[in-house]
Amino acid sequence: MGNIIHDAEYYIVEAQNRQKWKEQDKRVAEKLDDSTAGRRPNIIHFMWDDQPFGAVGIPAMQDYRGYSTPNLNKQAEEGVIFTRMYTEPSCTPTRSAALTGQLARRTGVYEVGFGVEYVGFPEDTTTIGDVMRCGNYTTGFFGKAHVGDMSSSYLHKRGFDEAFVSVYNQVSSVWNPIEERQNKVIGLNPSVLAKENYTMDKTFVPGWDDRWVFFYEGNVTDGKTREWCGTSRACYDAFDEEAKNRAFKFIRRAVEEDKPFYVAWWPLLMDLGSNSPNKTFESVQRGMVGEGYENFLDPAFGELMDLLEELNVKNNTLVVSMSDNGPMTHNPPPGMGMGEGVFRGGKGDFLEGGVRVSAQASWPDVIPPGSRAHDMIHVTDLYTTFAKLGGGSALDCIPTDRIIDGIDQTALLVEGDSNGRRDHVFIYVGPELGASVKNQYKMHWRSSDPLQAASGITSVFELYNDPREVSPMVVEGLHFKEPFKRMRARHDLWIEKYPHAKTNKGPAFTDIENAREETRELTSNAPVDLGDLPFDVNAFKTYELPFDASGARDGM
Amino acid sequence: MGNIIHDAEYYIVEAQNRQKWKEQDKRVAEKLDDSTAGRRPNIIHFMWDDQPFGAVGIPAMQDYRGYSTPNLNKQAEEGVIFTRMYTEPSCTPTRSAALTGQLARRTGVYEVGFGVEYVGFPEDTTTIGDVMRCGNYTTGFFGKAHVGDMSSSYLHKRGFDEAFVSVYNQVSSVWNPIEERQNKVIGLNPSVLAKENYTMDKTFVPGWDDRWVFFYEGNVTDGKTREWCGTSRACYDAFDEEAKNRAFKFIRRAVEEDKPFYVAWWPLLMDLGSNSPNKTFESVQRGMVGEGYENFLDPAFGELMDLLEELNVKNNTLVVSMSDNGPMTHNPPPGMGMGEGVFRGGKGDFLEGGVRVSAQASWPDVIPPGSRAHDMIHVTDLYTTFAKLGGGSALDCIPTDRIIDGIDQTALLVEGDSNGRRDHVFIYVGPELGASVKNQYKMHWRSSDPLQAASGITSVFELYNDPREVSPMVVEGLHFKEPFKRMRARHDLWIEKYPHAKTNKGPAFTDIENAREETRELTSNAPVDLGDLPFDVNAFKTYELPFDASGARDGM
Repeated sequence: MGNIIHDAEYYIVEAQNRQKWKEQDKRVAEKLDDSTAGRRPNIIHFMWDDQPFGAVGIPAMQDYRGYSTPNLNKQAEEGVIFTRMYTEPSCTPTRSAALTGQLARRTGVYEVGFGVEYVGFPEDTTTIGDVMRCGNYTTGFFGKAHVGDMSSSYLHKRGFDEAFVSVYNQVSSVWNPIEERQNKVIGLNPSVLAKENYTMDKTFVPGWDDRWVFFYEGNVTDGKTREWCGTSRACYDAFDEEAKNRAFKFIRRAVEEDKPFYVAWWPLLMDLGSNSPNKTFESVQRGMVGEGYENFLDPAFGELMDLLEELNVKNNTLVVSMSDNGPMTHNPPPGMGMGEGVFRGGKGDFLEGGVRVSAQASWPDVIPPGSRAHDMIHVTDLYTTFAKLGGGSALDCIPTDRIIDGIDQTALLVEGDSNGRRDHVFIYVGPELGASVKNQYKMHWRSSDPLQAASGITSVFELYNDPREVSPMVVEGLHFKEPFKRMRARHDLWIEKYPHAKTNKGPAFTDIENAREETRELTSNAPVDLGDLPFDVNAFKTYELPFDASGARDGM
Repeated sequence: MGNIIHDAEYYIVEAQNRQKWKEQDKRVAEKLDDSTAGRRPNIIHFMWDDQPFGAVGIPAMQDYRGYSTPNLNKQAEEGVIFTRMYTEPSCTPTRSAALTGQLARRTGVYEVGFGVEYVGFPEDTTTIGDVMRCGNYTTGFFGKAHVGDMSSSYLHKRGFDEAFVSVYNQVSSVWNPIEERQNKVIGLNPSVLAKENYTMDKTFVPGWDDRWVFFYEGNVTDGKTREWCGTSRACYDAFDEEAKNRAFKFIRRAVEEDKPFYVAWWPLLMDLGSNSPNKTFESVQRGMVGEGYENFLDPAFGELMDLLEELNVKNNTLVVSMSDNGPMTHNPPPGMGMGEGVFRGGKGDFLEGGVRVSAQASWPDVIPPGSRAHDMIHVTDLYTTFAKLGGGSALDCIPTDRIIDGIDQTALLVEGDSNGRRDHVFIYVGPELGASVKNQYKMHWRSSDPLQAASGITSVFELYNDPREVSPMVVEGLHFKEPFKRMRARHDLWIEKYPHAKTNKGPAFTDIENAREETRELTSNAPVDLGDLPFDVNAFKTYELPFDASGARDGM
């Protein structure tokens, strides 16, 4: 990984472990060669929404939540549970980070997108799709991307041979009047809002519902982008099954053509409006957690594993299964089961509850069954590790002009617990650094108590003794302030040297072959034509909010 | 279990499952006969302080707390994890309930005892020791009892052939000045309190330290009670090892004499004052949780299992391991690692965090390895289940003039998950009913929010979706209010028919053969002789506080 620019802290650690790691790298390469007979693995990254550490893979922790995931639990038995996987605190930044190997803050795609966002990856972004293609993998993306609505984020233009994508998240599904859920459009429908006598501006909540593009498809061969199905409820309901079928077909074809494959299968999953007339869930009482797992996610995962077995590639396929951030504990739709897990906080928080997720991996050729690893891993590490496993030509495609936060964790996969190479995490909330973690210590840079503006004397937590971050160390904490400040200074100064990308803002849904009239209008114009105005009504599409005004916790 | 008086709710359930249970009982008896070759099991109840669900037995849940308990985890692998074991919310009531099979409220031994408490079991109490002796078991108690300081609670007078007992808990260990920790007395030393210029009454905190009895020993043969060692720090530090050795010796003798045995081994465990000069822990940073497990509890448990193996009785010994209540989350000594687990609340609370504990059992003859059971069990069920396993003559000794809360869970042990017979729990906090649980629903009778006096519209919780009890059901909750009120009415009316025992209050530490001068003085007199007073200065020793004035949450 010679030329990759890591974050500053990595070099501090590397300097102290260089010789050991060098020897280990050699040993690991030999072991890999031995156990895989030189074959590079297929890689599947299976990721879903909003679930805490322990959500899958640990049956005893499912008992008290009243559901079970036998197929995902079986994977844990056959592979390794990562008990300290960190993500970013929300869907968009985690997915952005997984795709780029960089903290989402660095590419500017960090704000949870909701139609219409007018944002996309910078044009020089190199995704895991690009990297794996460099390694002669065939690459497919199926499911919820949620990384912007500009064409620069269309994933078949970002390294994926085939892409079938949900642009936004599930939230739109709850903004439908009951009678429209059956077969009408999905999206923010102004008719569901309470009537107000004082409303003077009808453009404020314009109701994009049938103007935006919810789903698109494309492939690298013809390079074109097409809207799939539309914005109706029926399309919404059909998407996950379609994504699954396409992913399976893609995998089958890759095996038939004897190509190693990289697949990101990120189910949209989970109908937030579980009380809709054509709901897929059996009760109105158990939402995403109670029935979403059992009715779709887990059986679909079981089918995947069966497919790999049928195709005789299970042993040399690395499957990483994980959720993308903590549970939506702040004002979830009712009956969702989105309570906190073992950690305090949830989606949107820099508390451990926001960023410690359920994660596990299987790779029978290499990972011993029933393993457990408590090493820190960050979702960006997947990027670098997958590239490493993809071989030299993949590695060589990782850009060397920017900071790559992902650390190569191949040794952890091969040699197991306590062979990880990460001892720290920086946790951003929107554009701001919320907390830094080093070993079991954690500094809150912002107070989690809204009555305190920023961290003060009580801002260092010891996560073993106080995993819920409720009792900051006071006396002992003083010993940790200077080290944490030192660590942050290095991080900040390194950004001066390798600055963040300028956020890419602009018109949404350009270049869609079959764009509907409404979408074309949305792409080119302001919400409603208001005639002459003393300013450009479309200027907002390219404007990036200043840091301080963005990134409020609940907005993430 | 024909003549046992159960709580009212049991009969509602029994009426609907009678035929099924009858057939099951027959099948279970046959299976037991088959798998044990007719031998009755030895029984060991291993119980320690203040740990939440998941503390042991589930390695992935230990990773994020930074400790491991390989021996206890091995037991879980060899047996069954109970993922829904309920206790009472504090040490004294749980221990009282385990010993009597009754909710602690019924015997009056429910307030967390701290020297001097002047309370004891009613004279007609029938403990699990009595019951198992009726079944010709030899019975031993070793460790922390914490069920009163009157002679009526001395355990060799309450059915135990041999008793080696800590009367109180660990809290006394933190009330010592640093310089005295090495070798002086354990207890509330007034010199550690801040000096006050306005103090007029020196009897208010009299400093019992060297007057009380911390440890006693006795056996049923000579019936006498002797103080063991004394109240020094050295005695305190030596107690757990001594209790272990005596328990092991007891077990060894029982096997040699070919007697089935019942042993309660409840380590005092865990030096709350881990920063004492002669601390047993390696760091000042990790208290009970970090090092208590690894330095004593788990290795000692491993020795126990080795001993059973050595004596060739492991297969026919039922070992139940559990903690006695949730973690001490409310104002614990610093650095203790007493944060909340997966549930909200801790010791003293009627929230799940107060009463859902880590629990598991092994019995190779009968329980299949690697099992899990999510059925509700209550600590009182052990009493009834142990008696059932002890055979007819043990069962016949269970008193039939009072409510026994324990339900026979033999079928759960033999046939596993979903074969439990409990679907409800009543959770008292001190003398008051705090909450009722039925299936996954829970009614808070008192609000957990101190700003609300009692439960209102928002008092029913669904524990699968909301295991932390933070989002009461509002609309759905209305459907559950009447059923919960009905259930409570039955419970209350049954108490009218079978009233609680009158709390047994009186002088502490009577009948101790080797009582020291100071102890004798404490037993017979008021704290300090104040000469003539217009009232009996000792009257407090027999006075029971009225219900409303007692049982404040933090006081429990």
